Amino acid sequence: MSDIKQQALQCREAAQAIAQLSTDAKNALLLAMADALLADQAGILQANARDMDAAGAKGIAGAMLDRLKLDEARLAGIARALREVAELPDPVGQVTRRETRPNGIAIERVRVPLGVVAMIYEARPNVTADAAALCLKAGNGVILRGGSEAIHSNTAIAASLKRALRESGLPEAALTLVEDLRRETMVELLQLNDVIDLAIPRGGEGLIRFVAEHARVPVIKHYKGVCHLFVDASADPDLALRLLLDGKASRPGVCNALETLLVHEAIASSFLPRAGEALRARGVELRGDETAQALVPEAKPASEDDYAAEFLDLILAVRVVKDLDAAIAHIRRYGSDHTEVIATRDGAAADKFVQSLRSAVVMVNASSRFSDGGELGLGAEIGISTTRLHSYGPMGAESLTVERFVVRGEGQVRHPDLL
Amino acid sequence: MSDIKQQALQCREAAQAIAQLSTDAKNALLLAMADALLADQAGILQANARDMDAAGAKGIAGAMLDRLKLDEARLAGIARALREVAELPDPVGQVTRRETRPNGIAIERVRVPLGVVAMIYEARPNVTADAAALCLKAGNGVILRGGSEAIHSNTAIAASLKRALRESGLPEAALTLVEDLRRETMVELLQLNDVIDLAIPRGGEGLIRFVAEHARVPVIKHYKGVCHLFVDASADPDLALRLLLDGKASRPGVCNALETLLVHEAIASSFLPRAGEALRARGVELRGDETAQALVPEAKPASEDDYAAEFLDLILAVRVVKDLDAAIAHIRRYGSDHTEVIATRDGAAADKFVQSLRSAVVMVNASSRFSDGGELGLGAEIGISTTRLHSYGPMGAESLTVERFVVRGEGQVRHPDLL
Repeated sequence: MSDIKQQALQCREAAQAIAQLSTDAKNALLLAMADALLADQAGILQANARDMDAAGAKGIAGAMLDRLKLDEARLAGIARALREVAELPDPVGQVTRRETRPNGIAIERVRVPLGVVAMIYEARPNVTADAAALCLKAGNGVILRGGSEAIHSNTAIAASLKRALRESGLPEAALTLVEDLRRETMVELLQLNDVIDLAIPRGGEGLIRFVAEHARVPVIKHYKGVCHLFVDASADPDLALRLLLDGKASRPGVCNALETLLVHEAIASSFLPRAGEALRARGVELRGDETAQALVPEAKPASEDDYAAEFLDLILAVRVVKDLDAAIAHIRRYGSDHTEVIATRDGAAADKFVQSLRSAVVMVNASSRFSDGGELGLGAEIGISTTRLHSYGPMGAESLTVERFVVRGEGQVRHPDLL
Repeated sequence: MSDIKQQALQCREAAQAIAQLSTDAKNALLLAMADALLADQAGILQANARDMDAAGAKGIAGAMLDRLKLDEARLAGIARALREVAELPDPVGQVTRRETRPNGIAIERVRVPLGVVAMIYEARPNVTADAAALCLKAGNGVILRGGSEAIHSNTAIAASLKRALRESGLPEAALTLVEDLRRETMVELLQLNDVIDLAIPRGGEGLIRFVAEHARVPVIKHYKGVCHLFVDASADPDLALRLLLDGKASRPGVCNALETLLVHEAIASSFLPRAGEALRARGVELRGDETAQALVPEAKPASEDDYAAEFLDLILAVRVVKDLDAAIAHIRRYGSDHTEVIATRDGAAADKFVQSLRSAVVMVNASSRFSDGGELGLGAEIGISTTRLHSYGPMGAESLTVERFVVRGEGQVRHPDLL
């Protein structure tokens, strides 16, 4: 048997112990993990320094290097996040529905853990702790396969978390970090469909496509966010401008940032010049259709590709549309099913926008930046699913469980006549 | 572009129209479909006769031939099932949770259709209508890929259902029957992960393995049911015997029939001889371990394979176990996560059995034969999922939807300080 299969089987075995833990025991484990991370701070920061050196030598710089970096404050943030997961409600054992049938059998739908979750991710070492915490809170085993740039940081963090498992009397295999980062090993992991219940890829488009292509285990993708703001004819222009600036300029590098602005032609000539000026003041480059370019002289022409792009940068595609239907058609064609926003004072238009779009999150008069597990009340998130199955949109601990049936009777049978 | 991709894209386009339908419109469509099937009865039965002739020529007989056969009564049953689906509650648009955040944004979790469901199935032509009805009720498009034995029946039934779509002013591509039954075409269908949101294979182990191996679209398996009854030391023997006979002998060919009986050693010497006699009277062959064989002389020896087998026949594996833990260990080792039953008067033993097993359905003092969408209150089922994701156990119309987020605000933004 290959090493990776053996590791996965050990994780599955250990996951059975995690599945049986009480809420208190799981929360105590998460607090012990937070303490372990802080106690092991020196070693973790040393390991991170090795990753940073290697990245620097490879010429990695800027935002990517920043995502890799750990320091005392960031490590304290990771420990704090573990404690916050401890405070979340436990989804396991929740009874979501009860019904007694006419024959007297009592049916409950009860949340149970998924089993083993494989997390496939890139650069950020905090994902190692964040993902492990949510998986364990939901009673699952977790297999973590991070990127090579963060391997020393990830190994040090995982060792610390595993120590907390061990010292809590629990099998450390419940948290398994894959240290063999060869692609063929990842493919083997993704094909263990009798062992792994769910794979969650988080990272760039290349990684997600690779996982989707090679997996035989179920996959929930966390794919790109081509988020739209449609400014309807009836929109309050001040409100629309607030949503626009928050959506585009408050943190352009995240998946819930706006990428395309659609403006109803009836409001374009008053709204767009003002919006263009406010965006220019914040360093945002506009790429527009002809009408938009006429109204915002500094706008460059937008290509087809620009409308499908997740810029993750201070760039915004702009299009003036004839009406709500044209806005919906544009989003259906170019959108990524992540998050869409309408600014409007017309309730019927809002309802139509919500009904007609199949995106995971649809907002009326609220910023796309609220498309986030914390902001939407999930407490923490393991990512934002753009797969239209199981969990769609921000995924919290509950999304790492599934409902099953528990039935209690008093000897009822289906064919009493046959006895 | 290949024919199958073109068909799938047309189905996705048509699915958008189905997703927008009101509950009344969908129910009217289902009733029109039922009427169309009855109006087209002569043609459907003729087509079925062609399938029956071809099956007879191939030497297919017995239960398989019976599953293929349609007659007036069975067609009336299919039409009735469509009307029953019309009467079920509409899952689409259901608000499952509401929350207003401290910043005033109002969040709803709302059920929306999955999109396009591909159903891959064998012999029974009724699945063509049953699956289509549930998919459409849940606002989805459906692609049906049945087996070659039923191709004429399936084509005739699909033509009739499509006529109802057309006459209701709806795009017929919402229901697409794949008539090209080559394996490579099925593989191509299963790899259209930008078009198909879910594939559901129903049939024999070979079909399900084939689908799981080749799919790049999400798959929910409807795999075998190796269902167990554990008769605890404290069980009421009369009750346990009722569950045993109903579970094994009322309809042995279905997935919720019992395949293995586990008996606590403290009750074995009184229970097993009586159970053996009752089973023999119903023509059930026993395959037991040594202790069971000593207590039921006509029992044959059980092999390892027998404990993992889904007999789908009047055969039952029997094992005497030391205690509840040994029963749980046996089920964890040999079970298929489908349905397990405990007969007991000991509440703590019942709770431990439920907690320790990860099967989709766990019953306390009730027959395994209740593991069925209709019996568990779902109204109808598209199958019984043994995939521990999205839907686990019997799947009804609700399992063909997913929850998304709808957020309404009054201009809230995440970083008001930046504006």
